[in-house]
Amino acid sequence: MSQSSVSAIRWANNQLILLDQRKLPLQEAYVHCVTHVEVADAIRQMVVRGAPAIGIAAAYGVALAAAEFSSDRDRMHRALETLADSRPTAVNLFWALRRMRDLIDASSAADLFPLLVEEATRIHEEDLQANLTMGELGADLIAESGRGALLTHCNTGSLATGGYGTALGVIRSAYRRDLVTEVFADETRPWLQGARLTAWELCQDDIPVKLIADSAAAHVMKTCAVKWVIVGADRITAHGDVANKIGTYGLAVLARHHGVKFMVAAPSSTIDFELFSGADIPIEERTSDELKFVQGTPLAPEKANAFNPVFDVTPAELIDAIVTERGVVLRPNAEKMRKLQ
Amino acid sequence: MSQSSVSAIRWANNQLILLDQRKLPLQEAYVHCVTHVEVADAIRQMVVRGAPAIGIAAAYGVALAAAEFSSDRDRMHRALETLADSRPTAVNLFWALRRMRDLIDASSAADLFPLLVEEATRIHEEDLQANLTMGELGADLIAESGRGALLTHCNTGSLATGGYGTALGVIRSAYRRDLVTEVFADETRPWLQGARLTAWELCQDDIPVKLIADSAAAHVMKTCAVKWVIVGADRITAHGDVANKIGTYGLAVLARHHGVKFMVAAPSSTIDFELFSGADIPIEERTSDELKFVQGTPLAPEKANAFNPVFDVTPAELIDAIVTERGVVLRPNAEKMRKLQ
Repeated sequence: MSQSSVSAIRWANNQLILLDQRKLPLQEAYVHCVTHVEVADAIRQMVVRGAPAIGIAAAYGVALAAAEFSSDRDRMHRALETLADSRPTAVNLFWALRRMRDLIDASSAADLFPLLVEEATRIHEEDLQANLTMGELGADLIAESGRGALLTHCNTGSLATGGYGTALGVIRSAYRRDLVTEVFADETRPWLQGARLTAWELCQDDIPVKLIADSAAAHVMKTCAVKWVIVGADRITAHGDVANKIGTYGLAVLARHHGVKFMVAAPSSTIDFELFSGADIPIEERTSDELKFVQGTPLAPEKANAFNPVFDVTPAELIDAIVTERGVVLRPNAEKMRKLQ
Repeated sequence: MSQSSVSAIRWANNQLILLDQRKLPLQEAYVHCVTHVEVADAIRQMVVRGAPAIGIAAAYGVALAAAEFSSDRDRMHRALETLADSRPTAVNLFWALRRMRDLIDASSAADLFPLLVEEATRIHEEDLQANLTMGELGADLIAESGRGALLTHCNTGSLATGGYGTALGVIRSAYRRDLVTEVFADETRPWLQGARLTAWELCQDDIPVKLIADSAAAHVMKTCAVKWVIVGADRITAHGDVANKIGTYGLAVLARHHGVKFMVAAPSSTIDFELFSGADIPIEERTSDELKFVQGTPLAPEKANAFNPVFDVTPAELIDAIVTERGVVLRPNAEKMRKLQ
């Protein structure tokens, strides 16, 4: 099974090598991180993005800190905090850092570096395996409703994960099973993950993709026989509320209005069983410049204010299926979500 | 009463002078049209845009044809067709051309030029007056639901009309009556009318504006106390279905879901009493390059396809009020719409 040729995150020669996602699709450039601060900066500046991918990158960042600080526990705990401060919404980041911290705290080894590299690599590989499993489970759901068009938002493919993808993994598996007529990819303003990354990944796999303006989704649902909207997640609460890229919530409302099914595909590391309500998920606001400039070109008057929340919360009631590597939850609620714990 | 300082359409020295809206807000450049073909090209290329504004520009274009063709009726009829072919969706274009044609056909004057300039000027002035009337009628509706935030899409201000604006005129009037806490302006991809034009007009009037990504509208409706979504229209059917900028239909669905009221403000020239169903309105598709490039900068992979419908249709059931200069129709249907005929 192809896992796509893209390697967004690579560990080699004791460095973390990240494909610079700010520059795609025009340029394939790589950022080499040799310190944990460089990794935290790469996450903050979105060299690497996508909830699972930032968890994996942060895990490698902890390994780098072990080399920097000769495994000094105190300084490594501060490095964990630095990495945790990079972005607030995706819980996979905190999940991966907790796994790394638990290993640090449990180990008496003088040199933590090899152990931590091994653990980060394991997190990376587990994520890829989880995506392959989710791909099949999600495609099974699509098979039940029959061949048709799909609509996706943001980028949830190899670039956003340890490989293959969450929502895009489901789309890849479904396409391979001849369940997909075409994929509508929202361009996903302001960062244009759909235009720059999803369209790029789907073109590489020769999966028929049509890029659309985010605001065209309602018209497309009404006129283009869309069967499923499929998205990833940055954090899922114990009740099944889902924080994901800004625009996801609106798509869920529109999908319900049009009788289109709504699927969230995310590894179980995305579930935050300590949070009950989506209203409690911290929603990152990024700089207004992301809206006011595109690739350095100004779009808006200099003195105009902009409001740039980059995630929103979709309540469980609007979701038809949450697909994880541990299984599928249909029409999620607290009771059903517990089975994934 | 201020009619805003912007003069998007001006007739002077027997020329039609258009503010080039493709270059705003970075540059205030003007295009001078001396032939009807130049006017048709300016409409097609969106030097001038906005349903009422293209009607007005086309009317002046007919006057230019009279000068070009020494009022030869046959050649002028062909000029009318050329102008009508410039854009398909906004009906104000055809309405204005019909008014000009009726005058041509009714007049026996050897020189039609002064008559046609006078008629185009009348269309222009009537549009401004209609907007001022709509502003008050729309603000009355907002007064009933109380002071709050408003959300608008695309640009419907001085730039899109004969002056003051349709939806933006309502917002101006409501702000003057202290009914508006803030205005959320969708950036309106792909052409960015909200970022480039609406934010610019509101900044010029010192009305507090927050630019948002189109896909943030649902999150803003849920969390920012939006009372009304207010939009313009490119064509309204006899039943009250509304074609407007892509994204309008989705906003109407989202507004209904959130208990936010939905207002359409448009002059009566926007109503096409010959069309009954919104499904019969021709929806313009523009080049995929509008999605794949911003100001010349490529955003998407070269080989990616894009689907770029630039209007959608909002069914009457989702509309709380249609505001015209002839009066307000609440919860429109065919019977109520007839009162505007």
